[in-house]
Amino acid sequence: MRTVEWHEGHVRLIDQRQLPWEVSFLELDDYRAVAQAITDMVVRGAPAIGATGAFGMALAAQQSTAMDIGSVLEYLEVASLILKKARPTAVNLAWGVDRMLVAAREDIYSNAKEIRQALIAAAQQIADEDVATNQAMGKFGADLIRDGDTVLHHCNTGALATVDFGTALGVIRSAFDQGKRFHVLLTETRPRMQGARLSGWELKQLGIPFEIIADSAAGYFMHRDEIQVALVGADRVASNGDTANKIGTYSLAVLAKENNVPFYVVAPTSTIDLSMKSGAEIQIEERSADEVRSPYGNALIPDDFPVRNPAFDVTPQRYLAGIVTEKGIVLPPFRENLPKAMQAAQVRLAKR
Amino acid sequence: MRTVEWHEGHVRLIDQRQLPWEVSFLELDDYRAVAQAITDMVVRGAPAIGATGAFGMALAAQQSTAMDIGSVLEYLEVASLILKKARPTAVNLAWGVDRMLVAAREDIYSNAKEIRQALIAAAQQIADEDVATNQAMGKFGADLIRDGDTVLHHCNTGALATVDFGTALGVIRSAFDQGKRFHVLLTETRPRMQGARLSGWELKQLGIPFEIIADSAAGYFMHRDEIQVALVGADRVASNGDTANKIGTYSLAVLAKENNVPFYVVAPTSTIDLSMKSGAEIQIEERSADEVRSPYGNALIPDDFPVRNPAFDVTPQRYLAGIVTEKGIVLPPFRENLPKAMQAAQVRLAKR
Repeated sequence: MRTVEWHEGHVRLIDQRQLPWEVSFLELDDYRAVAQAITDMVVRGAPAIGATGAFGMALAAQQSTAMDIGSVLEYLEVASLILKKARPTAVNLAWGVDRMLVAAREDIYSNAKEIRQALIAAAQQIADEDVATNQAMGKFGADLIRDGDTVLHHCNTGALATVDFGTALGVIRSAFDQGKRFHVLLTETRPRMQGARLSGWELKQLGIPFEIIADSAAGYFMHRDEIQVALVGADRVASNGDTANKIGTYSLAVLAKENNVPFYVVAPTSTIDLSMKSGAEIQIEERSADEVRSPYGNALIPDDFPVRNPAFDVTPQRYLAGIVTEKGIVLPPFRENLPKAMQAAQVRLAKR
Repeated sequence: MRTVEWHEGHVRLIDQRQLPWEVSFLELDDYRAVAQAITDMVVRGAPAIGATGAFGMALAAQQSTAMDIGSVLEYLEVASLILKKARPTAVNLAWGVDRMLVAAREDIYSNAKEIRQALIAAAQQIADEDVATNQAMGKFGADLIRDGDTVLHHCNTGALATVDFGTALGVIRSAFDQGKRFHVLLTETRPRMQGARLSGWELKQLGIPFEIIADSAAGYFMHRDEIQVALVGADRVASNGDTANKIGTYSLAVLAKENNVPFYVVAPTSTIDLSMKSGAEIQIEERSADEVRSPYGNALIPDDFPVRNPAFDVTPQRYLAGIVTEKGIVLPPFRENLPKAMQAAQVRLAKR
C-alpha cells in the first residue's frame, strides 16, 4: 500500500485526514483536484507531495486532449504552475513537478500519445526511487540509534510522508528491523497532530514501542536525560544546511543543543535546495487559524479568538549534528559538505 | 466576580473546565468535594488553589460537628491532609491550608464556634491578600513592558489562576491600564489549553490585543525577533530560583535565553519555597493520558495510543532575568536575593 499511486488511470491517495480512525482513499481524475488535495493536506510530507505532484503531471498529460506535442507541453506548463503553488515550503513538490516537465520536453517522442505514456512511467519512477532512497537513508541512519535509546521524533516522516517507508521514521524502522530495541517519543505536533495520529498509527502497526507527548514536553524529557537522539525530516534544506521543517523543529533543535542531544535531519537529496544560500530565503507557509482552533472539527478554541499559524520554521544549521541522505550522513560544515554530497555517489560515513 | 469565594456557607468556584464556552459555578458544601475540584482542575493556578484550599479548611471547620476545640482541630488536621494531596506541585496549596491550621491552633478561642467563625475570616483574608498581592506585582512588573512590545505569555496566570487580577497576566493588565499599547502572544498550552481558553477569554474581556499560537511556534516568533519579553507564572520556586511551572515553561525559557528575550517569572512570595534548595526536589505531577488524547471530550488521539503527560517542568534559575514578587522584582543571584526578599518589606527595584 503506497501513500500515492497510479491506479487505473487515476491518482489514488490515502486520505490522511481520516487517519488513524479510518483508512480511506481518494481517486482523482483531475490534476487540479490533485493540487487541491495537496493544499488540503489529504497528502502531506515533502517526499510524498513531490511524488504526488509528479503523478498530478502524469494525470494532466492524460487530460490534455491535444493531438500535437506542442499543445500537450503547453497544457503541462500550466498544470505545473498550478501544482507547484499548492504548497510553498517543501521544495520536493517543485522538484517532482519540474522533473516531469523535463521528461515531457525530451526530444524523443513522435506523438502526444507517447508523451502521455512516458509521463506515467516517469512518475512511477519518481515514486519507486523515493522508496529506494528511503531504504538507503534508513540503512545509513540506523547506526545513529543504539539499543536501549529513547529516540525523539517530530511530526510524521514515515511511509505516509513519503511514497513508502519514510525518512526519519524510516531510520527508526530500519534500526528496529536490525533487531535493535529502543523506545520512541512522538511529539503530537500541533496543530494537525501528525505526530500522534500518523506516526502513532504507523509505529503501532510496526510494533515499535512509542509514547506520545505534548510538543511542549520534549524539553522536559531532554532535560532529564531521557532522550539520546532526535530525528526529524525536512521540507527544504538550504545549501548551508539551514532546514525548514514542521513548526516546532527549531524549538526541539535548540533544546537538543542545550541538553547535548544529537539532532539529525533525515532528508533525501531531492529536499536539498542548493539555489538557496540560507534558510532566510525559504518561504514559510501560514495556514488557516481553524487548524489551531478546531482541529478536525473539534472545537478547542472559539472561532473569534485570533490565531497565528505558521506551518514551518527554519532551524539554523549550527543546531544540526548531521543530515542523513540516501548517499550517507552529511556532517558539518554543511556549506562545504552539502554541495559535495549532491555531486558524490556516496558520502563518507559517520558514526554517531 | 472572584475565582473562588465563600458564599452562603458554601465554597463557590467558577467551573474553569466550561470556559470559554460557558460561565458556570459549582457550590460545594464538603471539603472533600473541594479537594476533588482541585484535583479535577475545576480550579487551577497556584494562587487560586492556595485560596481554595484555605476556603476548603473553612468549610471543613463548619462540617465538624464537635463541641470541643480539640476535636475540631483533629478534624481539621485530617482535612488538611486530604486537601494538600489534591495536587502535589504548587506549594501555594500547602501554604494556604497550613496557614489555616495555624489560625485554628491559635490560643484565643473559647469554643468551637469561635474557631468556625475565625476560619471563614482567615480564608477571606488570604483571598483578599491575594488580590492585593497581585495588584502590587502588577505595578512592579508593568515596567517590564514597553509600548509596541509583543509579550509572550504561557498558560493562564490571570484572574482565573488567582482569586482575582492575576500574576503574569496581572502585569500585562497593569501595563495596559497604565495606557501602554502592546500585543500579547498566548501559547495555547497543551494539553488542557489554558492559554487559549482561559487567557484568551480574559484578554478578550479586557480588550487587550492578543493572538494564540501553538506551543511549538513560540520559538519561531522569538527567532524572528518578534517577541520582546516573556512572562510566566510559577507553581513553586525553590530557594535558588529554580521554578516549577506549567509544562513547556522550561522550553520557552531556553528559547528565550537563546534569542536574548528577557524571561520573567511573576509569583507571590507564597509560591517561594525556601525549604527546597533547588528544583530537583520539586515533585512533578503526571496527569491522565486522556488529557492529551481527548481534551474536554474531543477525541484527537485514539484511546489505545500510549501517552506521557507531565503537567509541569522545572526551569533552572540561570534562564530567568528576574522574579516579580509583591515586594518588587528579585534579580539574580537568586540564591542570595530570594531569601533576602522573603525577609524584606520591599526589594530594590530594577528596571528592564
